[in-house]
Amino acid sequence: MLFIVGLGLGDEKDITLRGLEAVKKCEKVYIEAYTSLLSFGLSSDGLSTLEKLYGKSLTLADREIVEEKADGILSEARESDVAFLVVGDPFGATTHSDLVVRAKKMGVEVKVVHNASVMNAIGVCGLQLYRYGETISIPFFTETWRPDSFYEKIKQNRSLGLHTLCLLDIRVKEPSLESLCRGRKQYEPPRYMTINTAIEQLLEVEQTQGGSAYNEDTDCVGFARLGSEDQMIVAGTMRQLQTIDFGTPLHCLVIVGKTHPVEEEMLDFYKLRGESLDQIDDGTI
Amino acid sequence: MLFIVGLGLGDEKDITLRGLEAVKKCEKVYIEAYTSLLSFGLSSDGLSTLEKLYGKSLTLADREIVEEKADGILSEARESDVAFLVVGDPFGATTHSDLVVRAKKMGVEVKVVHNASVMNAIGVCGLQLYRYGETISIPFFTETWRPDSFYEKIKQNRSLGLHTLCLLDIRVKEPSLESLCRGRKQYEPPRYMTINTAIEQLLEVEQTQGGSAYNEDTDCVGFARLGSEDQMIVAGTMRQLQTIDFGTPLHCLVIVGKTHPVEEEMLDFYKLRGESLDQIDDGTI
Repeated sequence: MLFIVGLGLGDEKDITLRGLEAVKKCEKVYIEAYTSLLSFGLSSDGLSTLEKLYGKSLTLADREIVEEKADGILSEARESDVAFLVVGDPFGATTHSDLVVRAKKMGVEVKVVHNASVMNAIGVCGLQLYRYGETISIPFFTETWRPDSFYEKIKQNRSLGLHTLCLLDIRVKEPSLESLCRGRKQYEPPRYMTINTAIEQLLEVEQTQGGSAYNEDTDCVGFARLGSEDQMIVAGTMRQLQTIDFGTPLHCLVIVGKTHPVEEEMLDFYKLRGESLDQIDDGTI
Repeated sequence: MLFIVGLGLGDEKDITLRGLEAVKKCEKVYIEAYTSLLSFGLSSDGLSTLEKLYGKSLTLADREIVEEKADGILSEARESDVAFLVVGDPFGATTHSDLVVRAKKMGVEVKVVHNASVMNAIGVCGLQLYRYGETISIPFFTETWRPDSFYEKIKQNRSLGLHTLCLLDIRVKEPSLESLCRGRKQYEPPRYMTINTAIEQLLEVEQTQGGSAYNEDTDCVGFARLGSEDQMIVAGTMRQLQTIDFGTPLHCLVIVGKTHPVEEEMLDFYKLRGESLDQIDDGTI
């Protein structure tokens, strides 16, 4: 049996009792390393916090391992209980459909243990989840690659009065261009897009496209480390949010659509007051 | 301090370690009774399963209590630690923004413990969460009240190729018409809309509106008891799903938009095969 267990968003305490029970009975436990594992007490030194809690050792599974060694993991899961741990929910922003499809094809049973993901935890800012349109992803621009297909989607959402969740690029274990040329595997240091960069890119695309989908005065909500003890949530215009240091990853951004009064009342608690940053959220809403 | 704790979707085992820790240190614990609490071992006899797990007694808070006695609950939370438990996530399909806004206005600190909700757990069917448009709600039609504002939203989503999550009506503790006339409070038995009724109403509205937003051959996914051990997920056309008995609540429905190959592969596992119902999901995907 393969258990795909969501760890939630904050730290080791966000696993569910059902998830913990599954992990404890598994012979082998993998943990995906696509997203940031910083707050889960994972570092290059070891996986101490989670390993202590589970009472067993973890195998870090980056994208390469999952893609190249999936059949090995699934063969193990056919013989015994194997857990694959993922940050957030197994089918949240980063999905693991591929692994499930492969498992099913190999005749391996799969059980999913759900948890919170960025896709629903953003509800904490007060904007109703059912008032969101299509979710978009903003990739890091390079000198030569500046894809802007998200622009039309934001425009569409805004014309319907809907909110837009912007997922920001994560680059973990990207082979460096130099190493690709040399045929040796060396990796770029991990990069996580900040809210500031996202807004900068958004405004650049608006300038190029000129479709008036949004501008510097458009209301947004910035989220950093959503679901962690030290989460930070600030509502303000693009211009305002661009000046704020949101700190360590992960960040995401919501472009606000048409709001209802109850949404506005909640959003108000996260708003910047003039020059003061006193109102910035510190995990206690 | 007021802790608003998401219980997740299945049963008592879906609380997170963080949530359980919060509940255990609270002096008073309320549990919202807006949605179905069946699988949480709650009945009119008592709240045994959860109370045993938490080691303390629970106060069932229906909509009336929350609306009428919120100030009382919040006064308690100003003096000591109070937990308010909700099925799913505190800001999922049923939101509790109102309670948070009141708390903030009274100067009561609030901490939110996130969990899975229907809004992200539907990802398990393989349709990507970022490919959903606006979520709609389908209310029970009566002889004289047949609101169909959801129709335009479905049409919009489908024209963009997006999936549509349909939340189905829940009627819990509705005063009976007779009791309203007599001025005494008596309640209708709880009603939960089935997938069958939802599709019947959807097709009726399509007939009336005639906008060709969908028809009997439109692909959908029906979910019953999502996140529970005995969840049931079936993919098929509206016509096919209408013939299926999905069993006890809660139900929800997804109208499928344009699909990508990886989505189709996953969806395939949930599809009806001809006349056979062997493929129906029983909680193990």
